[in-house]
Amino acid sequence: MKEFDVIVVGGGHAGIEAANAAARMGKRTLLLTMLVEQIGAPSCNPAIGGLAKGHLVKEIDALGGLMALATDNAGIQFRVLNENRGPAVRGSRAQIDMDRYRIWMRTALLNTPNLEMAQEIVDEILVKNGKVVGVKTNLLNEYKTKTLILTTGTFMRGLMHFGPVKLEGGRFHELPAKKISKSLENLGFKLERLKTGTTARIDARSIDFSKMDLQPGDENPKPFSFRTDKNTFNPEQLPCYITYTNETTHDIIKSNFHRAPLFTGQIEGIGPRYCPSIEDKLNKFPDKERHHVFVEPQTKEATEYYLNGLSTSLPMDVQDAFIHSIPGLENAKIVRYGYAIEYDFIQPTNLKHSLETKEIEGLFFAGQINGTTGYEEAAAQGIMAGINAALKVEGKEPVIFRRDQAYIGVLIDDLVTKGTNEPYRMFTSRSEYRLLLREDNAILRLADYGYELGLLDKQTYGRVLKLREEIEKGLKILNSTFVTPNKEVNAKLESLGEEKIQNKMEIRKIAGRHTFNKEKLLEMFPEFKEFSDEALEQILIEARYHHYIERQKAQVDKMKEMLSVKIPEDFEYRGIPGLSREIVEKLEKYRPTTLFQASEISGVTPAAIDILHMYINMRRKK
Amino acid sequence: MKEFDVIVVGGGHAGIEAANAAARMGKRTLLLTMLVEQIGAPSCNPAIGGLAKGHLVKEIDALGGLMALATDNAGIQFRVLNENRGPAVRGSRAQIDMDRYRIWMRTALLNTPNLEMAQEIVDEILVKNGKVVGVKTNLLNEYKTKTLILTTGTFMRGLMHFGPVKLEGGRFHELPAKKISKSLENLGFKLERLKTGTTARIDARSIDFSKMDLQPGDENPKPFSFRTDKNTFNPEQLPCYITYTNETTHDIIKSNFHRAPLFTGQIEGIGPRYCPSIEDKLNKFPDKERHHVFVEPQTKEATEYYLNGLSTSLPMDVQDAFIHSIPGLENAKIVRYGYAIEYDFIQPTNLKHSLETKEIEGLFFAGQINGTTGYEEAAAQGIMAGINAALKVEGKEPVIFRRDQAYIGVLIDDLVTKGTNEPYRMFTSRSEYRLLLREDNAILRLADYGYELGLLDKQTYGRVLKLREEIEKGLKILNSTFVTPNKEVNAKLESLGEEKIQNKMEIRKIAGRHTFNKEKLLEMFPEFKEFSDEALEQILIEARYHHYIERQKAQVDKMKEMLSVKIPEDFEYRGIPGLSREIVEKLEKYRPTTLFQASEISGVTPAAIDILHMYINMRRKK
Ligand SMILES: Cc1cc2nc3c(=O)[nH]c(=O)nc-3n(C[C@H](O)[C@H](O)[C@H](O)COP(=O)(O)OP(=O)(O)OC[C@H]3O[C@@H](n4cnc5c(N)ncnc54)[C@H](O)[C@@H]3O)c2cc1C
Ligand SMILES: Cc1cc2nc3c(=O)[nH]c(=O)nc-3n(C[C@H](O)[C@H](O)[C@H](O)COP(=O)(O)OP(=O)(O)OC[C@H]3O[C@@H](n4cnc5c(N)ncnc54)[C@H](O)[C@@H]3O)c2cc1C
Repeated sequence: MKEFDVIVVGGGHAGIEAANAAARMGKRTLLLTMLVEQIGAPSCNPAIGGLAKGHLVKEIDALGGLMALATDNAGIQFRVLNENRGPAVRGSRAQIDMDRYRIWMRTALLNTPNLEMAQEIVDEILVKNGKVVGVKTNLLNEYKTKTLILTTGTFMRGLMHFGPVKLEGGRFHELPAKKISKSLENLGFKLERLKTGTTARIDARSIDFSKMDLQPGDENPKPFSFRTDKNTFNPEQLPCYITYTNETTHDIIKSNFHRAPLFTGQIEGIGPRYCPSIEDKLNKFPDKERHHVFVEPQTKEATEYYLNGLSTSLPMDVQDAFIHSIPGLENAKIVRYGYAIEYDFIQPTNLKHSLETKEIEGLFFAGQINGTTGYEEAAAQGIMAGINAALKVEGKEPVIFRRDQAYIGVLIDDLVTKGTNEPYRMFTSRSEYRLLLREDNAILRLADYGYELGLLDKQTYGRVLKLREEIEKGLKILNSTFVTPNKEVNAKLESLGEEKIQNKMEIRKIAGRHTFNKEKLLEMFPEFKEFSDEALEQILIEARYHHYIERQKAQVDKMKEMLSVKIPEDFEYRGIPGLSREIVEKLEKYRPTTLFQASEISGVTPAAIDILHMYINMRRKK
Repeated sequence: MKEFDVIVVGGGHAGIEAANAAARMGKRTLLLTMLVEQIGAPSCNPAIGGLAKGHLVKEIDALGGLMALATDNAGIQFRVLNENRGPAVRGSRAQIDMDRYRIWMRTALLNTPNLEMAQEIVDEILVKNGKVVGVKTNLLNEYKTKTLILTTGTFMRGLMHFGPVKLEGGRFHELPAKKISKSLENLGFKLERLKTGTTARIDARSIDFSKMDLQPGDENPKPFSFRTDKNTFNPEQLPCYITYTNETTHDIIKSNFHRAPLFTGQIEGIGPRYCPSIEDKLNKFPDKERHHVFVEPQTKEATEYYLNGLSTSLPMDVQDAFIHSIPGLENAKIVRYGYAIEYDFIQPTNLKHSLETKEIEGLFFAGQINGTTGYEEAAAQGIMAGINAALKVEGKEPVIFRRDQAYIGVLIDDLVTKGTNEPYRMFTSRSEYRLLLREDNAILRLADYGYELGLLDKQTYGRVLKLREEIEKGLKILNSTFVTPNKEVNAKLESLGEEKIQNKMEIRKIAGRHTFNKEKLLEMFPEFKEFSDEALEQILIEARYHHYIERQKAQVDKMKEMLSVKIPEDFEYRGIPGLSREIVEKLEKYRPTTLFQASEISGVTPAAIDILHMYINMRRKK
């Protein structure tokens, strides 16, 4: 029987990153997936990144993952969203060519050392003494493994809804994964149902683009990956288009609510709150006059367009009718109808922060199976599961990012401590430390990990170290050089259209003005001329948001303290109000030494941790 | 309900050509297929063309089809097989990049005027009064149509065998088409089973190519399509490799015969005689010491290799073991296992020469569903079904190629007159008129049809007409110019290393010598210097094979005569020995006016036609 250190089930966005990370960390890794051709298939919209999602992509990149590189290679439009707002809430987004993205990913994996791949469906998880030992596939092959990462996406007992039509499958006309659900149930996991949906794809020739607004890519597109050469990055860009629903659209849909699987009870799973279907939007916001529709090319040949904003599982005739009511889509021909899909997921409260299940050693879950939605959320979990499975094989502690270190940390902490009852997606608002966790500093925050783990190459890491040095040097100049309000200085300021100064102050205070920018900095303080653009960007952000950043850093210190709070050895759990008997019994059994350890015990809720924290503090004060 | 002139079911090689032809002939056409991404997927080996198959591709090209163009665009190695043998048995073959081939085909179809596409599975064929009227899909959509072309390939009740494992599906991990089989049965068709198989795909990195022989592409690769510009055609070519099975390989396989689905009775369908699985080869030729294995890249990234010659449905452990016994494959890692597949087909004797079914008007079958095997055979039927469905809509007579006109004619004539009990593939030996039906003159033979039907563009057709003129002019020179055995002539011949002549003779006789070639022709008869290479090629072939070609043309005339033999109006069928009562009844009912018409009647066998021919002749002589 073939033996592996890490087996990854599923070649979606989570599985790709998991397999790549584990293999590149030197572990003998096997990726089992349904269709090799569909590795990296974007099930839904042909785009990577976006608000908060762009952050995840850049964090994955800093750790040495693949998503950003694939996007740079397959991208057909690049935009920075919220470009004119603060750096904390900017988000990079790219339209991708769905063919090239898959080809790039497949090729990358088939060139990854230590990684093997086989086109088989995992039917059964083999466990011995509470530890995962292998899998059995639909070809009756058995593979032994030390760790197993499940990334089954929307495939477990996938059930699609096209109006009244129900079809089994993990995606339109792909197979479902059924036996593995049973196997998980046999292992004691409770499977719950969620739902997501997608829109119709339209034959490009049937669209009248002249009735739509043009949405071109950025004039100076920026790559996602720190490893992509900025200077030679020059992708051929295609435009997207914008159109709107209208009263007629809404009338057609509303008058068919009684036929919507979402409302008739046909769909039982809960859908993504922030990515709702059009029928859901009209139901929840009946007075909104129109909704955006983004019309996005699926490949560089642009033969089919994706209607972002029109996810639906309404009957086919209704889809035809309401799409035809939208300007530019009057004669639209649907190549693939929109649909909803319900699938099994597992409450992520079953997981430790490492993404290993609490109950079965060596078994990890990542991606949609944990109740998330989105390629980037999946990939972020994937890379962490891959890293932690590899570390587990080495007998090492897992890497766990705190909420102040990475959006990845926020994502996983939210999932494993709170669980979810609806598809979870990332938002910048989920982060308490937004100003610390910027897209632009992802590489500075996480490259140490990427490099230490062996995922980020030395040369790239060298570039990061150099950048960091530059920034430090720059900040030192900002903070330790003072400007006095003399004639020369004020004349300069005036010539730059800046207010004069009255008091002596650090350069930082001038550089941090919201009217200040790179050009002015270089003009005024020529010592910065030798700095790289990347460094200057960081220096200016640090200057402008100095106080906020300092405040968030202080909050972080408090949080760190809380998580590391030691539980006294003889701490008495019994009698603490608010702790259930079950929780008390578990705590007595495992006797965690820190609050963090306590939070990792299955069944110990975040609320219980808060209560414990309070009582430990009270006891200390006594 | 949406209405079409032609609906094509299936986006395989047959469906692509059918849809393209019908739409380009101005018919409102709809292509319904399972997965838009899989349009044009090569189910088996990543190659187009080969002996006799190359002929088909060039004939399809002459008719304005897509296969040759796609191959030229996605090809990663081009070779002419049998280059050193006669022009009749040469065959062009190309390795293709499986990704680019699919993308090219999908893009071409989505840019074809009058052609719509929808990702739906056809479950039911709607028939009224013996005429096809529409289809119903798995999304419960109904589409009305005047004609319907089924090209379901290996998908109808597809059942795959991997050793003991049986999986339903049309290809590895794709869905089967089940309901449509039932629908065909309800319409009175008898479905039979055939079987085909494929080999394992190997991770490129696990192959030791140094132990294999190199098989590079031709140094001066020639495109398939007459429409591809020869002068700029310059594909990047990848090598293939050759290795061999050996005694150990054979021992492993033979000692596992008892586990082979082919021998245990698990597989019921009959497999392709000329493309057998390795276990079949070892069973039938137990003494052969070794078999060729061609190791072919699947894409230009060459991450996976296809093992041509090792088709198998042996259990997975046996596949691993016997592959590892082959030089260069000792450490081979299998990404996808080989398997056999059984599927429904329909005896093509149910069809007229137009590929329309005899029983249901407007219903056409093309491709693997008719009992053939091979992409090229499928595409050839596809284009004819597309053309004839379009003509039917126009109320015109179908285009039917005689056996002397095209391999396509041979293929269809063989199928509809003889039926098949095993997967039918094309060979040059199937053609009685091989010297007339060459790859090199496909464009000359069929371009008139392509142009007349509106499938071949005017410019291309203009080039064909010019070429034809040149050839005629050249042949006239050859046949009407005489050389006399004078000093000058013989000195020239001697200087070219040619035998001298003793008698006066046409240039043709010298040009036709098997030692003669283009260079010598130009040297000796400078009047040919103005001729194009293409024309010279034809001229030399016609010269060399003059007598054979003339003889075959005479045979053709006889055959034509036979097919057009008129049946006297008052011809008495009763009492002719050898005609069954059923046949007599049908003939009396339909009263065909020619033998050809008689042959198109369902149930009237080729043997019956021979008998009729004899009796008509006898009656004439009386
Ligand atoms: C119809 C639809 C609509 C969606 N809409 C949205 C949306 O609007 N917004 C959004 O953010 N996200 C959406 N998504 C979700 C998004 O596609 C997923 O979040 C993302 O793809 C999850 O990545 P993953 O790696 O977890 O799983 P997937 O990308 O689903 O990949 C799972 C992989 O596992 C393989 N697999 C599954 N089971 C097995 C098994 N037993 N053995 C072997 N292989 C197996 C599958 O073949 C597949 O390759 C949608 C998904 C679908 C299907
Ligand atoms: C495992 C395997 C091994 C093979 N080995 C060989 C070989 O060794 N040599 C050889 O020459 N040939 C081989 N072939 C055969 C070759 O692939 C076929 O001859 C060729 O692909 C037939 O083309 P087609 O267009 O008839 O069908 P296919 O290429 O099979 O295409 C059929 C299409 O129809 C679609 N479809 C089917 N039913 C429906 C429906 N009800 N509704 C909508 N869409 C539908 C499918 O999705 C598919 O797109 C093999 C095929 C397979 C699967």
